[in-house]
Formats: sequence, C-alpha cells, structure tokens
Amino acid sequence: MFSLTVRDHMMIAHSFKGDIFGPAQGLHGATYVVDVTFEREALDRDDLIVDIGLASEVLSSVIAEFNMKNLDDIEEFANRNTTTEFMAMTVFERMAAAIRQGRLAETGKGLCSMKVTLGESHIAWASYHGKL
Amino acid sequence: MFSLTVRDHMMIAHSFKGDIFGPAQGLHGATYVVDVTFEREALDRDDLIVDIGLASEVLSSVIAEFNMKNLDDIEEFANRNTTTEFMAMTVFERMAAAIRQGRLAETGKGLCSMKVTLGESHIAWASYHGKL
Amino acid sequence: MFSLTVRDHMMIAHSFKGDIFGPAQGLHGATYVVDVTFEREALDRDDLIVDIGLASEVLSSVIAEFNMKNLDDIEEFANRNTTTEFMAMTVFERMAAAIRQGRLAETGKGLCSMKVTLGESHIAWASYHGKL
Amino acid sequence: MFSLTVRDHMMIAHSFKGDIFGPAQGLHGATYVVDVTFEREALDRDDLIVDIGLASEVLSSVIAEFNMKNLDDIEEFANRNTTTEFMAMTVFERMAAAIRQGRLAETGKGLCSMKVTLGESHIAWASYHGKL
Amino acid sequence: MFSLTVRDHMMIAHSFKGDIFGPAQGLHGATYVVDVTFEREALDRDDLIVDIGLASEVLSSVIAEFNMKNLDDIEEFANRNTTTEFMAMTVFERMAAAIRQGRLAETGKGLCSMKVTLGESHIAWASYHGKL
Amino acid sequence: MFSLTVRDHMMIAHSFKGDIFGPAQGLHGATYVVDVTFEREALDRDDLIVDIGLASEVLSSVIAEFNMKNLDDIEEFANRNTTTEFMAMTVFERMAAAIRQGRLAETGKGLCSMKVTLGESHIAWASYHGKL
Repeated sequence: MFSLTVRDHMMIAHSFKGDIFGPAQGLHGATYVVDVTFEREALDRDDLIVDIGLASEVLSSVIAEFNMKNLDDIEEFANRNTTTEFMAMTVFERMAAAIRQGRLAETGKGLCSMKVTLGESHIAWASYHGKL
Repeated sequence: MFSLTVRDHMMIAHSFKGDIFGPAQGLHGATYVVDVTFEREALDRDDLIVDIGLASEVLSSVIAEFNMKNLDDIEEFANRNTTTEFMAMTVFERMAAAIRQGRLAETGKGLCSMKVTLGESHIAWASYHGKL
Repeated sequence: MFSLTVRDHMMIAHSFKGDIFGPAQGLHGATYVVDVTFEREALDRDDLIVDIGLASEVLSSVIAEFNMKNLDDIEEFANRNTTTEFMAMTVFERMAAAIRQGRLAETGKGLCSMKVTLGESHIAWASYHGKL
Repeated sequence: MFSLTVRDHMMIAHSFKGDIFGPAQGLHGATYVVDVTFEREALDRDDLIVDIGLASEVLSSVIAEFNMKNLDDIEEFANRNTTTEFMAMTVFERMAAAIRQGRLAETGKGLCSMKVTLGESHIAWASYHGKL
Repeated sequence: MFSLTVRDHMMIAHSFKGDIFGPAQGLHGATYVVDVTFEREALDRDDLIVDIGLASEVLSSVIAEFNMKNLDDIEEFANRNTTTEFMAMTVFERMAAAIRQGRLAETGKGLCSMKVTLGESHIAWASYHGKL
Repeated sequence: MFSLTVRDHMMIAHSFKGDIFGPAQGLHGATYVVDVTFEREALDRDDLIVDIGLASEVLSSVIAEFNMKNLDDIEEFANRNTTTEFMAMTVFERMAAAIRQGRLAETGKGLCSMKVTLGESHIAWASYHGKL
C-alpha cells in the first residue's frame, strides 16, 4: 500500500457545549495543523499516488471554509461540538467530496482510502481514517 | 475509524542482559516520549473519542510508576529486557487495565483499540498496537 | 552563557483591527506553543539555571490567564492587536514580574535575561527577548 | 503488533518526465529523511523486534546506493519517475532483500511486514507498506 | 528585541568542488527548509514585526529563483560552492535587497537585522545572521 | 555571522544530590539529543563553516565518553550534579578541546564561538554558549 501526505493549517475560534469540557465551554481557539494522507494500492502511470501540487491546492481550498473563522457561526455545526476529532472527520468528508468531483484529476479517483489528522498542539492530535 | 493521541514522557535508567546489547549491557538510561493513541469507530455523544484532559491525567499516573526510576529495580521485570518495545507493551497493558477499571469514564469503555509509541531518540521509536 | 527552555501551550480566540490583517479581522483563534528560555551566566550551587519543575509550574500559571479565553474580552488589550509578537512580549512581562516576586525562588533572581517564543503554526513563530 | 522505526537520510538529484510535473521536469534534488518501520507479532527472546544497531547499519548501507547520486544516472530507473513514493517502494524492496539474505540476523526473519516513509520536506512525505 | 520567523522550502541539485567534499563532488541534491527570522526593536503601530502574509510571499518569490533548479547552472555561483551556509547567505542577501526595495512595505524598513537558516536534513542546518 | 549545527544523541543514567531535585535524587536516566552549533564570521575558501562530516565524527567521539554510561560513576563529576545544563557545558568543553587539538582541521581553528544544546525531552532543553 502506498500513501502520500501533505500538510497545511487553519486557525479557528470555537466553544464547546457540555460540562465535560470545563473551561473549553468558553470561546477560545486553535491552530489545527492538517495532514491529509492519500492511500492507493499501485502507483499511476506517472509513478504518482496523486499530484502533490494539486493535492495541496485542493486541501488549501477545502480548509479555507474554516480558516480565520469562528466555527460557532457555521450553521451546519449548530448541534455538534467542533472537537479536533469531529473536525478531522469534517475535513475528510470535504476532501472526499472534492475527489469524487474530480478535483484531484483522474488519478485521484484511483485512491482507495484517506486519513486526516489535525494537530491541536505539540501534545495532542486526532485523526479520521476511512475508505473513499 | 477515529483516533486521538496524547503525549507525555518519562526518564528512566536500566541495563540489558545478552551479548547482542553490547555497551547497552551497562547501566544507562533514556527519556521515553510516550504517545498513546486511542481508537474507536464512532464519536461519543459529546463528539469526543475520549476526554483529552482525563486521558492525559491517566497517562501521567500510569507512567509515574516508571518515571525517575531504575527499571532494573522493578521485580516484575527481573527476567526481561526493558527495551523500548517491551516498555511500549507494558505501558499499553497498564493503560488497558486503567480503561477496564473505568478510569477513562464510560466513554473509555467504547474504545476498540490503542497504540502506544515510545520515542527513545530523534532517530528511533517503538510501538505496541492492540485491541482493547 | 547558560540557557534553559521549558515548553507549554495555550489555546485562544481573538480578532485584529486594521486593513492589513485581511480575513484575520474576523474572530478566529490560535494554539500558541510557548517556549520560555531562561538565561544566566553561571550555574547556581545545585548546578542549575533554574528549577525546571518550578519554571514549568510558573509558566503554566502565567498562561492560565489567557488559555481557553477570547483575548478580545481582556480590557488591558483593548487598544492593541494581540498578535503573536505582542503576546510573546506579554508573556515575557508576566514571567518577569513572577521572577521579581520570587516565584522562581532565590535562584530565579540570578537570571539575567529571558526569551519567550510563541509558535502559531508549523511555519510561523515570534519571540520577545529582553533583560531581566 | 509490535513495530520499531529507525531514521536516516539521503540527498539525491533527479528530474521527472511528464507534463504533470511542471518545473520538476528540470534537474533538481531532494533530501529524503528515511524512516523504516519493522513489524512483528511477538518479541524475540531478547525482548527485541530487531537489533536497532544492526537495523541502522543495514539501512545506511541500503541507501548508500542512492545517497549523493543523480538518480537519472541509474539504469534500473530509466523508464520510471523517481518520485518520493516510487523511491519509498524501492528502499522497501532493497531492505526486504537484505532481510531475506539474513542481514538482520535470525530475528529479522521473524518480521512480518515493513513500512518505509520518505520525507521530502516539512510539508510532504510518502510511504510504502507491505508484507515480508 | 522582537523577532518573527516564517518557513518555506526549496528543492535543488548541485555538486561541490574540492577533495574535502568526497562523494558530494558528484551531482546530488537537497531539500532546504528555509526559515527567515526578521528582527526589530519595537512593534509597529499595528503591533506587528512585519506582515506575516507579505513576508511569506516575498520569501516564496525569492527562493523561486533556486527552487527546482540545478545550482550548478547559475552563472553567479560559478566559482563558489553552493554549500548550505553559502546558500543561507545568498537567501539573506536576496531578502535584504527585497526589503530595501520596499517589498515588505514601510514596516519592513524598520527591521534591524535578519537571520536565514537552511535545514538540509533532520541532523544538520546552517544560518547566516546579519544587520539590515 | 555564520553558524552550522550538527545533531547526535547519548543515553545516560544519573542521580542528583539536593532536596530541590525531589524524585530525581533517585537513579534515573535521560536521552540527550545533542546539537552543536559552530560559529564563524566568514566562510573558508571551500565556502564552509566547518566540514560537516568531520564535525559529526568529532561530536560522536566526544559523546562516546558518556553514551551508555552511568554518569554517577565518572570521578570528575563526583561533586557536581550532572544536570542538562551542566552536561551542555561539559560537552562544550570537550568539543572546544578537540578543536584546539586540531581535530576539526585548520578550518576549525577559524571558529569564533560555539553553542551546545542538550534536549532532555520534547518540553525541555538547555544550552551553553561560549567563545572559542
């Protein structure tokens, strides 16, 4: 199995609902360092998993939806907590939709699975790993 | 599959038995940077894998058993070599027992697997990955 | 010259005032990985720059003022932009005051200078370096 | 499952064939930080996955074939693009052959799988993961 | 003293002249992770050292001169060895010229010094630090 | 000012004397990631600060004195605490002596200063910086 990872980041504000979150119930924020890993079983005819420049551009455009935003203002997330793990799944879903739309070219359609990791600090990170 | 990782560290002395270890047969030591990855298939009702604060506390209390110690003095390890890989398995077992005891709350019981990685230097690390 | 650095982090929300900030004029956030470097010319009688445990505790208590907060709500910052470089200076000032109050013990009073670095992402960080 | 990773690096020149590569069609180069992860189900009688010193030596000798070279000059690669993912597979194959030849000793023959990751920058890396 | 660092990278081929370089006399290459640190004594009226977005853009355009190139083809370097330390100085000179031309805006002209660090691997890096 | 850094590591056991050290009074250990930074004002005629291969070899031989050892057994340290900062100074002194002996060749004698940093964990490190 082959895999390729590209890294970018986004800076967001948010707050959480539920006693378990303690002081994180107040409005605060995070830098998420976003790693997207693309997986496939064989290389394409150019010896690539996916075009790395294209992958970086698509990732950048996907996270632009959240970067420099207050996630509390996004209606879609109204009944959810935008935890690191939830946002990893959300970035996964957006990237998966982009791949289905052909935004990673024909080669992108040969990917079999993907993993999105969001680093919230030097001591904590969360991932969502799924099939495409 | 979702995963969440928290990081801590411990500083230990030890020595190894067996010619294969060369100079490491003498008493020396290591800083182990300890990463524990918790895995589950769906988020809990708070959109969490596990409470990150609680996970960090439990990890800290588990490795307190070894931190600032000479592992050669721990009777349980008398017939073993406390290699990085062996200690990764040991931390896994201690964390798994803590989860079974409910120390990661009800949500902790929904975890399906866990991975413990011990970094011994900038050029070497070892892991144990198993089901819960 | 001797120096010792300890690392911690804080997660904050904020917004900036001024066209130069573009989309960062909106409410967003950051994880700041905070490195504090303590400098002195000679070691103390215990062969220390400063007690590392104590230094970590004081740093943790200093950044608790900002961690999990919206910096826009802090009156002291009303007419400033809480940029990474501004917050590096702010943490420096709080740490310097703590040292003057003796919170790093007698040894802390022998420090001659200090540097505070705030990492906002894997590709950007800012520092304030000054005498004590 | 147990795993052990060792890290080394190699510095190479190369060029790519195909419009998709844009400016990378010209002669350029890369530092590849090479991580090799050895996997096995149980520790050997010394409580090891594989001897870490031996593993590092074998890795170093394997990548010496490419280090300080222009990959365009290697006949075996004449019809391929020496992308990061292709070179990850190539290092995997060389390491697997070394293991079959007994260069990781008897214990090396108990390994079940291996992963090779080549980091090309702070924002991109590629892996090949396969059975032994 | 305040400082702000931004990070980018470039991938180059080159060879060295002189017996001291051993196998590096052959054509090979490197990824240089490029960190540029901007230093000034006081923040500007926006509480900035320099606009981080602008700084990143200028750095990217400066290293575009070398990225994806064979440095042996650049006439200006004909009688030099393009070592990591030499290239750190070269990037410094290009950045300093850009600042003098006003490409970091008025605020850029308030910078007093700058440091350029080029990381060639996980175990070696070189810097050039000078006044502006 | 030019600088070049090379990285290596050593794994040691030790204990400390004095109530301030708390549990670190017991025998424990550390991995020290050792960074040595060589500083000079102008490049040599090969466009080098110092030969990086030679610098790495000398560093490796200097730290071999401590690697895989119990520092409590070294007579020279009998009345000292082998703290991270103390060991940074000690490695500095050994490296400085090696330079004076010509072990970094003629070019090594042109170095003006040096900095040694010992990383004891992902959250703490100490340095000694001095003239040569």
